[in-house]
Amino acid sequence: MFKSNNLSLLTDLYQLTMAYGYWKNNIHKKEAVFHLFFRKNPFQGTYAIACGLASVIDYIQDFHFSTSDIEYLSQLKGANGKVLFESTFLEYLSHLKIDCTIDAIPEGTMVFPHQPLIRIKGDLLQAQLLETTLLNLVNFPTLIATKAARIVSAAEGDEVLEFGLRRAQGIDGGLSASRAAYIGGCHATSNVLAGKIYAIPIKGTHAHSWVMSFEDEQEAFRAYAESMPNNCVFLVDTYNTVEGIKKAIQIGHKLRQEGHEMLGIRLDSGDLCKLSIIARQLLDEAGFPKAKIIASNDLDEYAIQKLKTQGAKINVWGIGTRLSTAYDQPALGGVYKLAAIRNNKRWDYKVKRSEELIKTSNPGILQVKRIFHKGLPVGDILYNELEKNLTSSIIDKDEKEIVLHSSNSKNLLVPIFKKGKLVYHSPSATEIRAQTLEQLELFKNIVLYPQGLEKNLFFLKKRILLEKSV
Amino acid sequence: MFKSNNLSLLTDLYQLTMAYGYWKNNIHKKEAVFHLFFRKNPFQGTYAIACGLASVIDYIQDFHFSTSDIEYLSQLKGANGKVLFESTFLEYLSHLKIDCTIDAIPEGTMVFPHQPLIRIKGDLLQAQLLETTLLNLVNFPTLIATKAARIVSAAEGDEVLEFGLRRAQGIDGGLSASRAAYIGGCHATSNVLAGKIYAIPIKGTHAHSWVMSFEDEQEAFRAYAESMPNNCVFLVDTYNTVEGIKKAIQIGHKLRQEGHEMLGIRLDSGDLCKLSIIARQLLDEAGFPKAKIIASNDLDEYAIQKLKTQGAKINVWGIGTRLSTAYDQPALGGVYKLAAIRNNKRWDYKVKRSEELIKTSNPGILQVKRIFHKGLPVGDILYNELEKNLTSSIIDKDEKEIVLHSSNSKNLLVPIFKKGKLVYHSPSATEIRAQTLEQLELFKNIVLYPQGLEKNLFFLKKRILLEKSV
Repeated sequence: MFKSNNLSLLTDLYQLTMAYGYWKNNIHKKEAVFHLFFRKNPFQGTYAIACGLASVIDYIQDFHFSTSDIEYLSQLKGANGKVLFESTFLEYLSHLKIDCTIDAIPEGTMVFPHQPLIRIKGDLLQAQLLETTLLNLVNFPTLIATKAARIVSAAEGDEVLEFGLRRAQGIDGGLSASRAAYIGGCHATSNVLAGKIYAIPIKGTHAHSWVMSFEDEQEAFRAYAESMPNNCVFLVDTYNTVEGIKKAIQIGHKLRQEGHEMLGIRLDSGDLCKLSIIARQLLDEAGFPKAKIIASNDLDEYAIQKLKTQGAKINVWGIGTRLSTAYDQPALGGVYKLAAIRNNKRWDYKVKRSEELIKTSNPGILQVKRIFHKGLPVGDILYNELEKNLTSSIIDKDEKEIVLHSSNSKNLLVPIFKKGKLVYHSPSATEIRAQTLEQLELFKNIVLYPQGLEKNLFFLKKRILLEKSV
Repeated sequence: MFKSNNLSLLTDLYQLTMAYGYWKNNIHKKEAVFHLFFRKNPFQGTYAIACGLASVIDYIQDFHFSTSDIEYLSQLKGANGKVLFESTFLEYLSHLKIDCTIDAIPEGTMVFPHQPLIRIKGDLLQAQLLETTLLNLVNFPTLIATKAARIVSAAEGDEVLEFGLRRAQGIDGGLSASRAAYIGGCHATSNVLAGKIYAIPIKGTHAHSWVMSFEDEQEAFRAYAESMPNNCVFLVDTYNTVEGIKKAIQIGHKLRQEGHEMLGIRLDSGDLCKLSIIARQLLDEAGFPKAKIIASNDLDEYAIQKLKTQGAKINVWGIGTRLSTAYDQPALGGVYKLAAIRNNKRWDYKVKRSEELIKTSNPGILQVKRIFHKGLPVGDILYNELEKNLTSSIIDKDEKEIVLHSSNSKNLLVPIFKKGKLVYHSPSATEIRAQTLEQLELFKNIVLYPQGLEKNLFFLKKRILLEKSV
């Protein structure tokens, strides 16, 4: 079980062997620029929601190799049985602090492929050491926030609850998924620790085991209502769902006599569309038009859309496994690539080549400009900050030129650390969630959103790719 | 970022509202039996490898509600704005320790659907409170250990390295995945913190960014070899793979002159089969027949099988995303079900009904007997420890009776906690891994493995299902 607060060793060994190599070759202090980005929108969708920056800030602030970390590293052996790292290097690591300049796109922002979510500028050795952990801390939350945003959009304003802890990928997989799901727009989580740590609303009532612990269902509902009259959502499908709804209604009447209102019922199996229509009718006829119908059972954005199309009378959607594990695409595939390195006074641009064009990276010190017209976003320009002659033209992925004109624009990457000093204050999860919902609203009716490389960046990249490979 | 050592709140809120309900109704001390099990082998496979018990033990030993946990719970409100939990209950929680009797199947054991991986016997309230966390701590590691075992089997004795941290589901998702992958049979991980915490072998050399940090590839290999001559695996696909292999060979000669051996080369893109054959030929011709060819790039058991069939000359398999996220099935779907509750002196059996037969749970206090014949396993009997008249007959999922005879058998569930006291010593990750590999060998040639309910348990379940539902 994870009990360490210090994450400096939460990295791939090769980051440390490379760091050692840079140090041995005395190039560890060369200034380098790396970008963290993804290449393809997840879930065959049209966007992603940036998430994970708050953890990145914590990680960088805490970054240090403890005495026991150094001791562990000093015992590692190479193929010939000799130690892997010499002690002078470990001594260097033991004093290492991160003093890079880091810019990032704030959490809750709608982002697109090839846009740097994080840009690191600083010592080659430091920037290299951050790679794995930054990817780990950004890939998964961004994936889950995006999945949540898709589900929340499909729910068209209905309440969406995240229930995925039991199937989540370990302790922190569960915690970070709950935070990311909330940031993506979910209304609450069932995860109590996430509620405590991130100040997120939590919800929950009872499970089948409650009903099964009593002699019969009616008795189980009655006992629950007596102990918690102000939090009554009855799970009605332990035995026969329609009978269960009727029993819930009886207890609803009893509650009302005592001055309480039943909040609703929950369906967790069977034909959710049919059962929700029956439930709505029974509840309305019995005088409970405000009682909510909550549904769960392997739901996602596709199931919600289908149920809505079929006319299901569901008010609240409980989403578990398919959200918390991003079931249909469980990895974002974000990468971290070197884009420039300073040799003496000159910046050398770097492009990672690949037979697949989508896998070639972009050179420079990149920034993203979002262009607005009449308050609405009209396109994103990925540009090189070192470029002196910036244009308003982008070249999109089909190599088509598009001119984006507007008086109004903003740079998406904002300063987070300046030479190691934190200059950014992370908003609360609730503030970030509001930002996501605003973005979803802003982009709601946009079908085609132009994004691409600023014309000069495009030609710079082409030129580098044509140069003799070495 | 996860910084809490106390996981008692890492649960769904409804576990706490149910606990409160049990307490209010004064049934919290009723003795109950719950089983944690899965219903279907993951990856459309034929088995799973049990994993996660070590974390479960840590969690139960540490179980307590801290002052700040209680304070957080005391502030939760119900629908009418009144507090959810009364203070006497929170006072009760603040002193709560787990004193259940817990049996479990040791990590590294081959297990099958409906077999309890963990069996909890104790106060209804306590057993209920453990549900979500136990599922979280067992579902994911079992999934990953199983995926790893499948990959290791496909690799037919070749070395398998786990490289998945950057795409893993958060910090602990990465750590627990690395441990589980090792337990499932992987030879090493790239994850340094997992290496430190779990005493797992770690491996790693360099990435594309190393090569790109130098003027040319040859210079990059030379610089790496100089700084770390005893750990040289050259990544050869940054520019042109075949040229990269030739450059690696040149540096290999130089290393040899200096008394070191190049360990191998790594291929990370392109046609791995074709490139590995070329690489093998070039390496052999140059006098490096022992240099290994390591391959990575979205590999899994299917890709390995295909490459082997095609005649690829790969010796070491680096597996990332598809292992650490269990990409093709990212959730195990384990559940936790009430199976018996004691009313006065009598045990009342409980079965969770469902329209889907596979979703009905089994009643009783369950144990699994593995039957051996001439040293080989011949079948598993799921039986009720309360049954006085045990038979050697199982009824399989097609309701066919199979008689399993042998002098030799063992119960898979072993005592872990007796009334809250730990009576089990967790083996090391290395010992558990050896156990997995032994099991894989033992079951290797078994095509059909009979598993099912002991005949009397089958009829007990049938009888309960036929009783009037309540």
